[in-house]
Amino acid sequence: MTSAHLNESPSITDAKEFFASCRPLIDSALDRLIPSEHDEPVRLHSAIRWSIFAGGKRFRPALLLAAGQTFGATSEVLLRTACAFEMIHTYSLIHDDLPSMDDDDLRRGRPTCHVKFDEATAILAGDALQALAFQIIAEDEKLSPPVRVQLVAEVARAAGTPLGMVAGQARDLAAESQPVDATTLEKIHLQKTGALISAAARCGAIIADAEAEELDALTEYGRNLGLLFQITDDLLDVTASASEMGKTPGKDARAQKATYPALRGVESTRAETQAVHRAALAALKRINHPTTLLSSIADFIREREA
Amino acid sequence: MTSAHLNESPSITDAKEFFASCRPLIDSALDRLIPSEHDEPVRLHSAIRWSIFAGGKRFRPALLLAAGQTFGATSEVLLRTACAFEMIHTYSLIHDDLPSMDDDDLRRGRPTCHVKFDEATAILAGDALQALAFQIIAEDEKLSPPVRVQLVAEVARAAGTPLGMVAGQARDLAAESQPVDATTLEKIHLQKTGALISAAARCGAIIADAEAEELDALTEYGRNLGLLFQITDDLLDVTASASEMGKTPGKDARAQKATYPALRGVESTRAETQAVHRAALAALKRINHPTTLLSSIADFIREREA
Repeated sequence: MTSAHLNESPSITDAKEFFASCRPLIDSALDRLIPSEHDEPVRLHSAIRWSIFAGGKRFRPALLLAAGQTFGATSEVLLRTACAFEMIHTYSLIHDDLPSMDDDDLRRGRPTCHVKFDEATAILAGDALQALAFQIIAEDEKLSPPVRVQLVAEVARAAGTPLGMVAGQARDLAAESQPVDATTLEKIHLQKTGALISAAARCGAIIADAEAEELDALTEYGRNLGLLFQITDDLLDVTASASEMGKTPGKDARAQKATYPALRGVESTRAETQAVHRAALAALKRINHPTTLLSSIADFIREREA
Repeated sequence: MTSAHLNESPSITDAKEFFASCRPLIDSALDRLIPSEHDEPVRLHSAIRWSIFAGGKRFRPALLLAAGQTFGATSEVLLRTACAFEMIHTYSLIHDDLPSMDDDDLRRGRPTCHVKFDEATAILAGDALQALAFQIIAEDEKLSPPVRVQLVAEVARAAGTPLGMVAGQARDLAAESQPVDATTLEKIHLQKTGALISAAARCGAIIADAEAEELDALTEYGRNLGLLFQITDDLLDVTASASEMGKTPGKDARAQKATYPALRGVESTRAETQAVHRAALAALKRINHPTTLLSSIADFIREREA
């Protein structure tokens, strides 16, 4: 597999090129790891596959591969954990889109899971994906049990409460009915989007057995990258067209969602992306491995707000 | 803690007495392991606690303690994994009760999570409980990493798809719109209820480092105990009064749920409980440890259909 070979070398240092090279690798691993839609229960498995293979950019698994390869791990040992992150991310999208949550009918231009199937099936598809994410890490025989245990704990903390993704979503819901300040908004973003992104970077480095100090630096990078990702997402919601977004722009504002542009205006938010981007790059300076790819990823995320 | 001492000895051989002695131990461990309702996000944590402390009988964690103690483990090393099973079970009840699933307003005589709070919070509460279940196993420093990894995999397979609880729920939903035969119904029951019950017994034995052959026998016991549990549950739905049930009896039949009594009639179903009960006890004969408590648990489950 040539793409596997390409990924195992740190030779690709451009984010866009790296993402393109990772994608077929991640997609084929997901295809192997997720039950077939020909196996019972067919409707459940079809719903899971509908959402997993919906054209996602595979940002979290690619980031895990980038971080792991930065510290010397091969894509082969990183791949299952990378897929676990995509499963957690996809389950959260399925549940987020539900009528009682964000009530979205479209994602990336296609019907969302509960529209294509039904609400009950969508809830179960998300639930099953969460369980599968932990299962594939626990069953990963390429990794030692102590590493697997550490990864399960990392993913669970990043996905759950009080500091992870579900906590961020609960805070985000609460913010719809009461005004939030900048500190609260940052906390929502750090938990809702940042925790999983940061954990993806960390898990790559954990698999590669990175030193504690370098892991700390990478955590700081991941934290800022997660913030950058969410702030640029907020900006895109205000500035991009529907075709660029693959969903309805301006939706956040109409839903009275707490966003940086709503709180601070577009110009001040753009300045914030620069500050967060700088902080991400500064953290990389404390890492004694070649970080060109990781810094290119930060550039790539910042630039998508153009 | 005297209750801890009592549980660590295999001296209690009566199921009812054992359950009563386990309950305060399990409840106080859950209280320690679940975020406080005073910590942000308050509404999420309140919803989680509302459902976890709703008067559940703690059957799955107690079964895990019973199986583990049968093979010589102390309640101290079993307790966190026991709590993980209660978390998975509770998350499944919260999601099952949602309007798009079984649409239940009451459980054990109290408003269900989405009625007391709201649907979005109930979905998130279930999601967070699932993540927490895996987290507390992964972080359990009383157990070796290889054991923790095995437990995470067991719980994930039992909770997920294609052979676990979520698969069973998806099959159960499908059965509402098409007639099922006895084989399919058994498969639904084995997955929806049986997988988690059987895994609880297995995980207790795994923590106690039981021999492979005894673990096989215990699995057979757990499989039949899970079936017995679900069949007697179906019978109770037909025969018990509302006050005995804490929910509306006859609801399954009206919802066209696939149940044993609906498929075979009450008398034939009662005969089936006897057969499944016998199979559970027969499996225990292959275990070279005192199994009086485990057989008393099987008696206890059978007798609740009286």
